[in-house]
Amino acid sequence: MRLRIDLGYDGQAFSGWAKQPDRPSVQDSLESALATVFRVERDQVKTVVAGRTDAGVHAVGQVCHVDLPEALGVRLDDANELARLTKRLRGALGKDNHVWIHEVSAAPEGFDARFSPVARRYEYRIADSHALRDPRLAGHTVWRDEELDMASMNTLGQALLGLHDFAAFCRAREGATTIRELQEFSWLRDEQHVLVGRVVADAFCHSMVRSLVGSAVAVGAGQLSTDDVLRLRQEGARTSAWKTMPAHGLTLMEIYYPDPEHLAERAEQTRAPRRLPAD
Amino acid sequence: MRLRIDLGYDGQAFSGWAKQPDRPSVQDSLESALATVFRVERDQVKTVVAGRTDAGVHAVGQVCHVDLPEALGVRLDDANELARLTKRLRGALGKDNHVWIHEVSAAPEGFDARFSPVARRYEYRIADSHALRDPRLAGHTVWRDEELDMASMNTLGQALLGLHDFAAFCRAREGATTIRELQEFSWLRDEQHVLVGRVVADAFCHSMVRSLVGSAVAVGAGQLSTDDVLRLRQEGARTSAWKTMPAHGLTLMEIYYPDPEHLAERAEQTRAPRRLPAD
Repeated sequence: MRLRIDLGYDGQAFSGWAKQPDRPSVQDSLESALATVFRVERDQVKTVVAGRTDAGVHAVGQVCHVDLPEALGVRLDDANELARLTKRLRGALGKDNHVWIHEVSAAPEGFDARFSPVARRYEYRIADSHALRDPRLAGHTVWRDEELDMASMNTLGQALLGLHDFAAFCRAREGATTIRELQEFSWLRDEQHVLVGRVVADAFCHSMVRSLVGSAVAVGAGQLSTDDVLRLRQEGARTSAWKTMPAHGLTLMEIYYPDPEHLAERAEQTRAPRRLPAD
Repeated sequence: MRLRIDLGYDGQAFSGWAKQPDRPSVQDSLESALATVFRVERDQVKTVVAGRTDAGVHAVGQVCHVDLPEALGVRLDDANELARLTKRLRGALGKDNHVWIHEVSAAPEGFDARFSPVARRYEYRIADSHALRDPRLAGHTVWRDEELDMASMNTLGQALLGLHDFAAFCRAREGATTIRELQEFSWLRDEQHVLVGRVVADAFCHSMVRSLVGSAVAVGAGQLSTDDVLRLRQEGARTSAWKTMPAHGLTLMEIYYPDPEHLAERAEQTRAPRRLPAD
């Protein structure tokens, strides 16, 4: 009995997704609310998440799953029961609106929030000197004093696409691959001329989006060229040539899952070790 | 020597624009920063503001003026000096980004932040059940459980336009007129399907925008008709038929000033008592 939960949160209120002792986390808030709603112990409602966001990172389109004990007798095929469940979960999470449950649904056969996704999309917001600075949005927008050249940031974004070893952009985690397929990395200016970066990959290693954005800012500020960044990626070691950008500018926007019939197959693929083709 | 200051702020951090004992206000923060920058006493840098926003109301395009003592010898005709001044004022306001100074400039002859405007524009944001709820934006967006009918809200908005007595929408203030010209009151849904109301008038009486929005919500929810609202306006007394909406959904977006040659004339007009034509 697997439940899929779609949710969003304001990262400022949390030390990230993952449970940590004595620190507020989204996972802790959510599992506590689930335990209340189902009247079970916390260890009966352990969640598995699509994107383990760091402290301060926001989410609009996060997804997780939880396996409910059969004994609870929750009727996942009943739309009314699911709607009531969504409402009660929102209620248990409180009125402060730091976490919002978009929807609770029955996970289809083979669905795994973490391993089934084919892609994840993040957004990064930068108000440079050319943008209007809107204090209402300061909690999820990084303010920079210089003007950034969007055209060269987009040139870099194009050049970085594809299946590559992104070790230069990753904080090392033992046993974790750094081979990723970057599918989109583009910038536009919104109505307030704020630079909004769109970053899509099959998956991201730790701090990868913020490091990619750091390289784009270095290029946009004229400190590095696209060739510099490509050369450093080729070298394959974490670099200090650009900075990892602050967490609060980053938001997890969307998780892409395959059609139901490919969910299990995709999860198996994802779990397998990755290699670059003929590299 | 009159200085014009364009600024924005996050209303959540303040008990409104106006100074109050023992409560944080934008005016207090700004005048304190001005006193620091010019090394004068607080009473030498009293500000006059275009829109006296209530507690919790945000501003993106607020404008105020301050008359500086001649003895300070500030050279308002020197663009570099104004740029330095802007920077120092931002610095004195601190790093928390609750208030942001867009620009400091020399006020043209006849400019009065409060009395010269020809119009003011506000925005009101409502995420109803049809909208995506983005927890990053919860600080300046009101969340409603029902779905609101935007078409009927726009019909009401059109019907309310023009020069009228808006007493039904105003919290009474002695000696203050309630005759206003409503120039625009329209709704659209943004990318996230959030209802964004645009409200423009020559000026607003106290709580008028939030009360106008309250009437639109009552109409959008099917509780009142446009005719009901028009009839209640005609009666000219404050009503409980609709609610004054919460402050945090409201933002002052823009102040419109006339061309420099009409500034003084406009200020004189504004100060004169108002009457409805042949009412």
